[in-house]
Amino acid sequence: MSEHQRNLWPTMQFLLEVVEILTNYIRKTFDRSTKVLDFHHPHQLLEGMEGFNLELSDQPESLEQILVDCRDSLKYGVRTGHPRFFNQLSTGLDIVGLAGEWLTSTANTNMFTYEIAPVFVLMEQLTLKKMREIIGWPDGEGDGIFSPGGAISNMYSVMIARYKFFPEVKTKGMAAAPRLILFTSELSHYSIKKASAALGFGTENLILLNTDERGRVIPADLEAKVIEAKQKGYVPIYVNATAGTTVYGAFDPINEIADICEKYGMWLHVDGAWGGGLLMSRKHRHKLNGVERANSVTWNPHKMMGVPLQCSAILVRERGILQGCNSMCAGYLFQPDKQYDVTYDTGDKAIQCGRHVDIFKFWLMWKAKGTVGFEQHIDKCLDLSAYLYNKIKHREGFEMVFNGEPQHTNVCFWYIPPSLRGMPDGEERRKRLHKVAPKIKAMMMESGTTMVGYQPQGDKVNFFRMVISNAAATRSDIDFLIEEIERLGHDL
Amino acid sequence: MSEHQRNLWPTMQFLLEVVEILTNYIRKTFDRSTKVLDFHHPHQLLEGMEGFNLELSDQPESLEQILVDCRDSLKYGVRTGHPRFFNQLSTGLDIVGLAGEWLTSTANTNMFTYEIAPVFVLMEQLTLKKMREIIGWPDGEGDGIFSPGGAISNMYSVMIARYKFFPEVKTKGMAAAPRLILFTSELSHYSIKKASAALGFGTENLILLNTDERGRVIPADLEAKVIEAKQKGYVPIYVNATAGTTVYGAFDPINEIADICEKYGMWLHVDGAWGGGLLMSRKHRHKLNGVERANSVTWNPHKMMGVPLQCSAILVRERGILQGCNSMCAGYLFQPDKQYDVTYDTGDKAIQCGRHVDIFKFWLMWKAKGTVGFEQHIDKCLDLSAYLYNKIKHREGFEMVFNGEPQHTNVCFWYIPPSLRGMPDGEERRKRLHKVAPKIKAMMMESGTTMVGYQPQGDKVNFFRMVISNAAATRSDIDFLIEEIERLGHDL
Repeated sequence: MSEHQRNLWPTMQFLLEVVEILTNYIRKTFDRSTKVLDFHHPHQLLEGMEGFNLELSDQPESLEQILVDCRDSLKYGVRTGHPRFFNQLSTGLDIVGLAGEWLTSTANTNMFTYEIAPVFVLMEQLTLKKMREIIGWPDGEGDGIFSPGGAISNMYSVMIARYKFFPEVKTKGMAAAPRLILFTSELSHYSIKKASAALGFGTENLILLNTDERGRVIPADLEAKVIEAKQKGYVPIYVNATAGTTVYGAFDPINEIADICEKYGMWLHVDGAWGGGLLMSRKHRHKLNGVERANSVTWNPHKMMGVPLQCSAILVRERGILQGCNSMCAGYLFQPDKQYDVTYDTGDKAIQCGRHVDIFKFWLMWKAKGTVGFEQHIDKCLDLSAYLYNKIKHREGFEMVFNGEPQHTNVCFWYIPPSLRGMPDGEERRKRLHKVAPKIKAMMMESGTTMVGYQPQGDKVNFFRMVISNAAATRSDIDFLIEEIERLGHDL
Repeated sequence: MSEHQRNLWPTMQFLLEVVEILTNYIRKTFDRSTKVLDFHHPHQLLEGMEGFNLELSDQPESLEQILVDCRDSLKYGVRTGHPRFFNQLSTGLDIVGLAGEWLTSTANTNMFTYEIAPVFVLMEQLTLKKMREIIGWPDGEGDGIFSPGGAISNMYSVMIARYKFFPEVKTKGMAAAPRLILFTSELSHYSIKKASAALGFGTENLILLNTDERGRVIPADLEAKVIEAKQKGYVPIYVNATAGTTVYGAFDPINEIADICEKYGMWLHVDGAWGGGLLMSRKHRHKLNGVERANSVTWNPHKMMGVPLQCSAILVRERGILQGCNSMCAGYLFQPDKQYDVTYDTGDKAIQCGRHVDIFKFWLMWKAKGTVGFEQHIDKCLDLSAYLYNKIKHREGFEMVFNGEPQHTNVCFWYIPPSLRGMPDGEERRKRLHKVAPKIKAMMMESGTTMVGYQPQGDKVNFFRMVISNAAATRSDIDFLIEEIERLGHDL
């Protein structure tokens, strides 16, 4: 045993003890008798719980104390893999995906060059091609990259659309272009707005489109607003169609939007961060009909496909444009005189320099489940949401935010406590109903039994948004959620 | 045992077998008789190695095959933790950090709200405060966020500088501002250029500053260029001073640059992605003197501090500006009527929506090493680079790119094979010397013994850039590198 190997021994023991903590945590996560969370307020955790002190110090702690810190960090956290955690679009804990992430962190490398990530770079390339084939682009041609989340993927789409029409902006800035206009649904994700602010368009030049009662963009409204912008002398260049909105789970009509984009020469982006996963399902992929006409697509396997966080792809139909838009040809990283084919180096396409390996867990899950495994998962989640919808649509005390079976797994509803049931519609009822969901949510978190999101939207007061992406969830968990809402909300 | 628990059993077994693969990998990584890499060209890996096929299929593979896939993915990768891997600024494999990353992926949550990441959100807050204290901002006041890498952190700095002076750009776009000018060293990281392109400034409005023989910005050149820009009617708003350039490891003179920024009312950003770690060392932190005068600082613990990838912070002196710049107030995520103090929700400060938990591994390492542990690590790496410098500065066949002890761990040098040693300086020698480093590097990779980076810079032909950030590296590894370069390059 070398000296370093000898020195290594206690830390390897430590690592195995952490694994013990983690596997216990995983087993409990899938056990419904375990709480989803053990809620504490910030000031409580900051003051320090028994034996758990967040403060950093000058002197090292013992490895024994570090193990306690690990245990406590999990103890006071939230079990996002719990079958009754419905709070976010990303839920669940896939063990193969998790193993993939552990391997990724052990490999501890960077996606920017083939040189130091040969296997991962090729996996990314093959997987992106497969995704483009599924989108329906001929022979899976095109380009793409995994990015740190859907917001950055959407930001890429705006950048490359601008580069397509006004490449001189890269060197001369926005001053070189006329007033450029972007369009997106009033119910789309806020990242489009963030991108318009960050990239120098300005949020006022992002025009919000009206939606129908189900939350889908009204194509005629898009066309009218395009014409209006052109009449003012502005230049419409980009439309984002959402496939699966965050709250309603609505799918904008891509084909009709694509017609308008073609007619007026605009870039069509499909934000399928949430809904892209449905492309894996023969039963549900029709909801994205027309996606093959998009110029770019955001698709987050870390949402509907259950891949651990983070895993988001931006896919682009035209080859070379991602590189053209972002390349700066840094000589110290992308030497042209390497011994291998340097077109495999991905770094110059990215707005990042170092880039985390997000592909391996996804690739490994795909190997383990096959395309059919993802399809089964997605069909199952959508079945569960139909079950929930059918169960509550006529149930006393529940009111749907919109009618009709959900397009995605989003089910949006109000719980009406008995005290409000007889009340006439009006300001007083609205005011009181607005407070119901937050109160129930707070009680859920205090009791730690389940978690589900709520929000107001437009003129609608706070309502619950139930979403299902967790492979561990069953009908009994849906039943539990409904009963829990009734139990906690009954006396409000 | 519930049904799910029973179903869980084989995958938990699988996870433990993956752990076995990973711990074997780690042990071998620290063993110098193991190769750094087993190089294959892209086409070789794509054609498929024995038993290892990268293609995805419709049908699932067995867990046994998945284990083989895991083993092979590591086998054909690069051991970035190997004591003789010197190829990047991020090297090494800290076991406590790794354990932290495994825990992070098991928790599988998202940094955007306190609601689902209470412990991690508080750890981030406390750690950022500690970093601001170390920078020297009074009482550690200010703000900050961990971002997916130094390029994004630098992009943040440009965004908030613009917001500080021209907040109306957020809503009205760059058209609302005069022609804005940014400044950075000609040797700074290319992310500043990427940011100027992406954010709509245009790369032509990023003025590059001349550097001295050691690669440090010449302050007089900055002032002259500021005056010139103003005379043209442009508005200089931002200067990036690099603390530790990528190739030379040079530290720009922050105090002198800060004087000019104050005189002309410009934002001072310090890109300490690489050099920020030196703030932890009482011996070396003077190289960043004046950093406390910066408006914002990028600092990547995943580089000089040995934290696993990724871990990068953007720190901001003025409180509230990060939020002001980026907030879009998405109602579905950042409900104001939650039961806890929602100022702890971090998402609206970010350009991302979902954000990976990059803090835990860093926090855990800090606990385990203490501030003094980071200091020892940094001092040791700088000692090693001084050892390398002193060893080769007068050695036959080696020529330094610049004279004087390195400021950081970067040691830049040419290896001159015997066949070139007698040759007079001139185009022919330059042409031949330019090919030496790539050839040696290719042979290194083929033999798998070590890895070190090279690049040309300005009028200088390809030279080696040695950097040391790996805690496992010793003097014997430095000796090995020199001998290996001589062995491989002798007959060129």
